[in-house]
Amino acid sequence: MTFRHGDLLGIADLGADEIAYILDTADKMAEVSRRPLKKVPALRGKLVVNLFFESSTRTRSSFEIAEKRLSADTLNFAASSSAVQKGETLVDTVLNIDRMQPDAYVMRHASPGSCHLIKRFTKAAIVNAGDGAHEHPTQALLDAMTIRQRKGSFEGLEVLICGDITHSRVVRSNVHLLNKMGAKVTVCGPATLIPPHFDALGVKVSTRFEEAIRGKDVVMMLRIQLERQQRGLFPSTLEYFKTFGLTEKRLKLADKDVIVMHPGPMNRGVEIASEVADGPYSVILDQVENGVSVRMAVLYLLLGGGEDEAAH
Amino acid sequence: MTFRHGDLLGIADLGADEIAYILDTADKMAEVSRRPLKKVPALRGKLVVNLFFESSTRTRSSFEIAEKRLSADTLNFAASSSAVQKGETLVDTVLNIDRMQPDAYVMRHASPGSCHLIKRFTKAAIVNAGDGAHEHPTQALLDAMTIRQRKGSFEGLEVLICGDITHSRVVRSNVHLLNKMGAKVTVCGPATLIPPHFDALGVKVSTRFEEAIRGKDVVMMLRIQLERQQRGLFPSTLEYFKTFGLTEKRLKLADKDVIVMHPGPMNRGVEIASEVADGPYSVILDQVENGVSVRMAVLYLLLGGGEDEAAH
Amino acid sequence: MTFRHGDLLGIADLGADEIAYILDTADKMAEVSRRPLKKVPALRGKLVVNLFFESSTRTRSSFEIAEKRLSADTLNFAASSSAVQKGETLVDTVLNIDRMQPDAYVMRHASPGSCHLIKRFTKAAIVNAGDGAHEHPTQALLDAMTIRQRKGSFEGLEVLICGDITHSRVVRSNVHLLNKMGAKVTVCGPATLIPPHFDALGVKVSTRFEEAIRGKDVVMMLRIQLERQQRGLFPSTLEYFKTFGLTEKRLKLADKDVIVMHPGPMNRGVEIASEVADGPYSVILDQVENGVSVRMAVLYLLLGGGEDEAAH
Repeated sequence: MTFRHGDLLGIADLGADEIAYILDTADKMAEVSRRPLKKVPALRGKLVVNLFFESSTRTRSSFEIAEKRLSADTLNFAASSSAVQKGETLVDTVLNIDRMQPDAYVMRHASPGSCHLIKRFTKAAIVNAGDGAHEHPTQALLDAMTIRQRKGSFEGLEVLICGDITHSRVVRSNVHLLNKMGAKVTVCGPATLIPPHFDALGVKVSTRFEEAIRGKDVVMMLRIQLERQQRGLFPSTLEYFKTFGLTEKRLKLADKDVIVMHPGPMNRGVEIASEVADGPYSVILDQVENGVSVRMAVLYLLLGGGEDEAAH
Repeated sequence: MTFRHGDLLGIADLGADEIAYILDTADKMAEVSRRPLKKVPALRGKLVVNLFFESSTRTRSSFEIAEKRLSADTLNFAASSSAVQKGETLVDTVLNIDRMQPDAYVMRHASPGSCHLIKRFTKAAIVNAGDGAHEHPTQALLDAMTIRQRKGSFEGLEVLICGDITHSRVVRSNVHLLNKMGAKVTVCGPATLIPPHFDALGVKVSTRFEEAIRGKDVVMMLRIQLERQQRGLFPSTLEYFKTFGLTEKRLKLADKDVIVMHPGPMNRGVEIASEVADGPYSVILDQVENGVSVRMAVLYLLLGGGEDEAAH
Repeated sequence: MTFRHGDLLGIADLGADEIAYILDTADKMAEVSRRPLKKVPALRGKLVVNLFFESSTRTRSSFEIAEKRLSADTLNFAASSSAVQKGETLVDTVLNIDRMQPDAYVMRHASPGSCHLIKRFTKAAIVNAGDGAHEHPTQALLDAMTIRQRKGSFEGLEVLICGDITHSRVVRSNVHLLNKMGAKVTVCGPATLIPPHFDALGVKVSTRFEEAIRGKDVVMMLRIQLERQQRGLFPSTLEYFKTFGLTEKRLKLADKDVIVMHPGPMNRGVEIASEVADGPYSVILDQVENGVSVRMAVLYLLLGGGEDEAAH
């Protein structure tokens, strides 16, 4: 199979076979990271620009490690989107960097659709590393890699995603992916944090955590962004934990082989109890490890991967 | 021809033949950047320290890409010159880094002559990436590369540079270069932004844009630094645009094959109209592309370039 | 001899033979830095994460250059320890990065013992780059390399360390090292800046600089951290210089072959006179140069060094 996309803008653009192909490639990349010499020359002489308009040490580091393991040259271009009118800055910035001949952009930006916008101005591959509340496709792919490692397949899996559904790009990418792969998704959270008509995306919607978690194979807790809490979307973090926090007691309501996921960084004692985060059902750190593998796979597939060299 | 300089402190130090030689080398480097594997081992094992005492994402990125394409090791040393008495900090900083055996410094500093100062304390090559309002030689070289691509030669070319002449290092380096190469330079701007006796540099001086632009082959617009505007050097940005902004109408007064240049980043609607910046006469993005080639050429020539390896 | 440690947490853990072995290895590494092609493939495909919870441009740069000269991949992970409860952040941060499979951490953190804490959560090698006022072992090793270059051996050497003894990690690591190697250490400073019972570490304690410096072979001046001066630990920097500043006159009281050291960055005119810092007895810049060699040696020894490749 050949990967026929030039970019990874969102999971919405991918077919189930393509998702599976990325995950298969990521499995091979995971093997590279376990070698003593953790490096392949696949992308030698390619330039990947990490274009982060929002700061993100963790995601950027994961991409940077992936790029270096593939022997790409990396440039970290930390741009602030606050000073100037955003649309113009973004396009002018990209038009400029583009003439330095990058092969790929890994881009994070506060505006939904920003990656689609810059696609019109560059021939380089674009990897969306989060565009507002729209998509964060490599997060969904690393989640999928983690689920597949534990569950074998997605068909008929019952998945619960719980938290701030409105402001999450993670949930949108995951809903697209899990639907395409045959899983059944329920989202859950306070009514103030679920957008209207969200069920139109093909998911069940619940505001009762203890009901929603019953029998679930996968429970994915989202990060509560405490900085939004000023707006009063829920009474307090303590109140949130009492109603929607994942405790050991609540986890007992799920399937006996449940896995617990979180995109990180966690607020321990807000959306998840420490005992659960560090407990036997947690695969949260596996997600982090799979993040590097998935990002290596995506960059490798998008940049052509110099088949001859990959064998070295 | 051998390049016999150990540093690139300013265009003032170069002869016309040396400038041409750098541009010829930059043409070859441009070819490297167009390859699928955009990298040559010429500077492998050399350490280039990017020593920026003023922040500059764009120039630093251009240098960093140039360094990586030549396989040099790079160290970004972001230094703040605000905290301590400047002269001492600069010398002590350089004395320290110098004992880590760098092969070259790419340095930007707010003080004119700072590169000449540190030259006394290091045997490493120094590339001036902007020292106050003094020189910014790689900018003039990338401008020259762009002009030569479009015009073939400099002899007899009529060049207009318009904007804040007083505070611009770009204009000084360009005046030196264009004079040496046989072009005729006119500078233009509000009287408050042109230093007294500037014509002593061998240029015509004008405060009337529409008169000055007539018949020009090259029009280079300088960035108005809006942060200086507090000092009231001109009434308002709108007023500036009305008097010195490059509009399509004004551009018609220039030669029919005129090219429009700008060192970036642009203030659209202040010194240049968007229609002109994005229009058919604009070579502004070519300047950015040539920036990487010129910086590769300069570093290659200064660091000896390991002739045997360059052929790989 | 094989280096049998997996980490470098402090000098306290090392035997005299091991210290000598690191210094011998550093001598070989110094030779690499003097080559035109300053790079060996020893750590190719290894990932070193520079995990700095306190900012430090100089130490981080020294490590980064060491890593690149050994061909390791480097990731600079600048973490702020201010926002969140420190212990948790640190462990969660390390647990996360650890799943990206680094081979080593170079870590600086404000809390004494933080490197020991994270050791429980990773199999990667840890190099302590300063943990609070506890240890800074590569500083002591580079000091030792500098002393050995000038004095040949440590046996019976009289060493004076003068300054803020209480808040210095440099002094603790140096006292451990110098005691193990057979030197005799005196510490000196204002009584307010010497912890009680410091002589239990096996050093002489003095508050009279001119008495303490008499006949010394090595005089190491510590940096006065001016930001602490708000707390009023001494009357003024001028007063400090008058009492504890190293002047040419005072230096004459030391042995005629004395060497003057300082871990940098210096406050000229506070703890040391410029004439002394730049004078013939100063080995301060040698310390900086040896810093890269010592860090190369430590990383090489900890990461196994791929013996076959090192020969290339």
